[in-house]
Amino acid sequence: MAPLQPIEYPDAQPSVREVYDDIKHTRNVEDVNNFWKFLAHHPATLKRTWESLKEVMAPGALDPLVKEMIYVAVSATNNCQYCIRSHTAAARQRGMTDDMLGELMAVVGMANETNGLVNGYQVRLDEALKD
Amino acid sequence: MAPLQPIEYPDAQPSVREVYDDIKHTRNVEDVNNFWKFLAHHPATLKRTWESLKEVMAPGALDPLVKEMIYVAVSATNNCQYCIRSHTAAARQRGMTDDMLGELMAVVGMANETNGLVNGYQVRLDEALKD
Amino acid sequence: MAPLQPIEYPDAQPSVREVYDDIKHTRNVEDVNNFWKFLAHHPATLKRTWESLKEVMAPGALDPLVKEMIYVAVSATNNCQYCIRSHTAAARQRGMTDDMLGELMAVVGMANETNGLVNGYQVRLDEALKD
Amino acid sequence: MAPLQPIEYPDAQPSVREVYDDIKHTRNVEDVNNFWKFLAHHPATLKRTWESLKEVMAPGALDPLVKEMIYVAVSATNNCQYCIRSHTAAARQRGMTDDMLGELMAVVGMANETNGLVNGYQVRLDEALKD
Amino acid sequence: MAPLQPIEYPDAQPSVREVYDDIKHTRNVEDVNNFWKFLAHHPATLKRTWESLKEVMAPGALDPLVKEMIYVAVSATNNCQYCIRSHTAAARQRGMTDDMLGELMAVVGMANETNGLVNGYQVRLDEALKD
Amino acid sequence: MAPLQPIEYPDAQPSVREVYDDIKHTRNVEDVNNFWKFLAHHPATLKRTWESLKEVMAPGALDPLVKEMIYVAVSATNNCQYCIRSHTAAARQRGMTDDMLGELMAVVGMANETNGLVNGYQVRLDEALKD
Repeated sequence: MAPLQPIEYPDAQPSVREVYDDIKHTRNVEDVNNFWKFLAHHPATLKRTWESLKEVMAPGALDPLVKEMIYVAVSATNNCQYCIRSHTAAARQRGMTDDMLGELMAVVGMANETNGLVNGYQVRLDEALKD
Repeated sequence: MAPLQPIEYPDAQPSVREVYDDIKHTRNVEDVNNFWKFLAHHPATLKRTWESLKEVMAPGALDPLVKEMIYVAVSATNNCQYCIRSHTAAARQRGMTDDMLGELMAVVGMANETNGLVNGYQVRLDEALKD
Repeated sequence: MAPLQPIEYPDAQPSVREVYDDIKHTRNVEDVNNFWKFLAHHPATLKRTWESLKEVMAPGALDPLVKEMIYVAVSATNNCQYCIRSHTAAARQRGMTDDMLGELMAVVGMANETNGLVNGYQVRLDEALKD
Repeated sequence: MAPLQPIEYPDAQPSVREVYDDIKHTRNVEDVNNFWKFLAHHPATLKRTWESLKEVMAPGALDPLVKEMIYVAVSATNNCQYCIRSHTAAARQRGMTDDMLGELMAVVGMANETNGLVNGYQVRLDEALKD
Repeated sequence: MAPLQPIEYPDAQPSVREVYDDIKHTRNVEDVNNFWKFLAHHPATLKRTWESLKEVMAPGALDPLVKEMIYVAVSATNNCQYCIRSHTAAARQRGMTDDMLGELMAVVGMANETNGLVNGYQVRLDEALKD
Repeated sequence: MAPLQPIEYPDAQPSVREVYDDIKHTRNVEDVNNFWKFLAHHPATLKRTWESLKEVMAPGALDPLVKEMIYVAVSATNNCQYCIRSHTAAARQRGMTDDMLGELMAVVGMANETNGLVNGYQVRLDEALKD
């Protein structure tokens, strides 16, 4: 049985088109990414995910570039190829340089390494870090 | 609602006792670990898991100490505290020294680090590594 | 068999003390965290990990607060309790407010959510994101 | 060095053919999936994995469709592409509709999101949830 | 520096109390879980997460018990202790028996096992599973 | 925006060439893997990662084949395709047979399975395994 196919605008139901329109307007792009075209198979998930993402990634106490880099860090840890590529591209558009990417990846690598060391050595919480 | 409690030998049904007996006999121990006493809530899982583990961890092309260290490496990566402790103890009993543990953890750390780097940098497969 | 215990300064061999001294000096603290006291069971890992961490977390193209937040993001994704606590504390010391923490966690949550959605829906890479 | 290749029926040793035959008979299919053809490189793993899977996925207190959806949920969390595809196909064959898939993925997404939030906020266990 | 503490109702700001009230009303409970009391440090995340969860876990194409079991499956895979406990309790309240829990866990175990095998053996997608 | 491309020797800056030369000399190969050619975008990460890896994977208390198998075990657990392939190839070169690979994968599978079971059943630490 074939996997799901992306739903293009002309084939989308009105509630899906409404979300596509809002994404295109908010991001000033001509078409939405495949991510949204797959979520469109479940319009409630499409709408909820877009509204959550729009709220979460908006400028706030953290700037959008930092948020995109955090997104890449999580996605690299989980090895979500699509997510790494799309959020790396978004971070680039917001000004991430090669050096910033290099340092981001160095931290991601170190964090994954020391997470494993802490677990493996069964490091106990310092008194100062307890509740 | 309280979580499950371990099932002790006197409270266990015959099919569970049979597995407990085989574990005690095979490992030459006086009591089984809590792991088995929790699995005993589903006797089919208890029996299947024990029989699989007995087969997998037996001496073969790899020696049992190497197998226990691989078990620790996976468990540290997944951060399963109970599994790390019990399989580190088993590896110690089979002769793992502090230096061996140190090198095991160094490899676990490096592997987790470079897994993250490979993902983050979207490293493409070398031609020589392709099918 | 008891798990490893942290190695305190007076019980440490010279090469370990040297690393402890450098950590205390670099961070201007009176004692090192348990993390280092457990790694001290394998002095080569202790030294290598400290030198790597010192290099990676130093100010550069990204500022140290951003680096600490990325560290927390990875550690929350991997559920490394010790790492979350110690790097959250470090981020706090570098000025992370409750609002910044809230946004950091919101991004970590969204990224983990959409990583799962991308995988589950088997979203295909957009042409624009390909090599 | 080339990776392993799948072992086809005519090239398989008798103990492998026996497992292939049982899979084909049990599932009423003409050929086995690549998964089994790769495991066939280690006949003991092939046999043990098939027998475990047959037992675990059989109808019981949970119906097979629910079991397939749980399988997909775990595989999406771990990002095992092959596993997602093959178990999504199996769930489809057992009657999973687009709406059911949509809700399954929505739960997978939410669970991964709140797992990250719980870790990151270091949420303490409620008294009512303790042992 | 001490980690965050849960925010109790009397100390909560109006927008937080509103969410607490809705949770208590929707679930017919006297107090909200610690999860919500920690999220309350970032009211926007509290509100968004509750509204998403309420929508996602509502009865639909899948019944709420199945959804809770999927939640447990993901949380066990990610090893989120708090999430496992709270959603196991919720599944119990919706009628999950010991046998159902046993089968749920058996599937979770098998899925994690075969995910590892598929990765390790680098199993290639069958033609029938391709796009 | 296109993802990063591997940096070939003629296009590399002197500090990168120096690392490439050391890799080629140490491993007695004519060219370095893509992994290094991607890390070369951040020369400090390239140099640090290579020096760490060279130290960690050197013969010591554990022999290099065991180290490569541990590397594969972690990479299979994390599903890092590139890492699985390159370290499986390295293990093969160091003498890993099909039977050894089969047993390695069987342990990886079992460890991932029982990690899930321990989490899901919320197995409590045995007294004998506590600090």
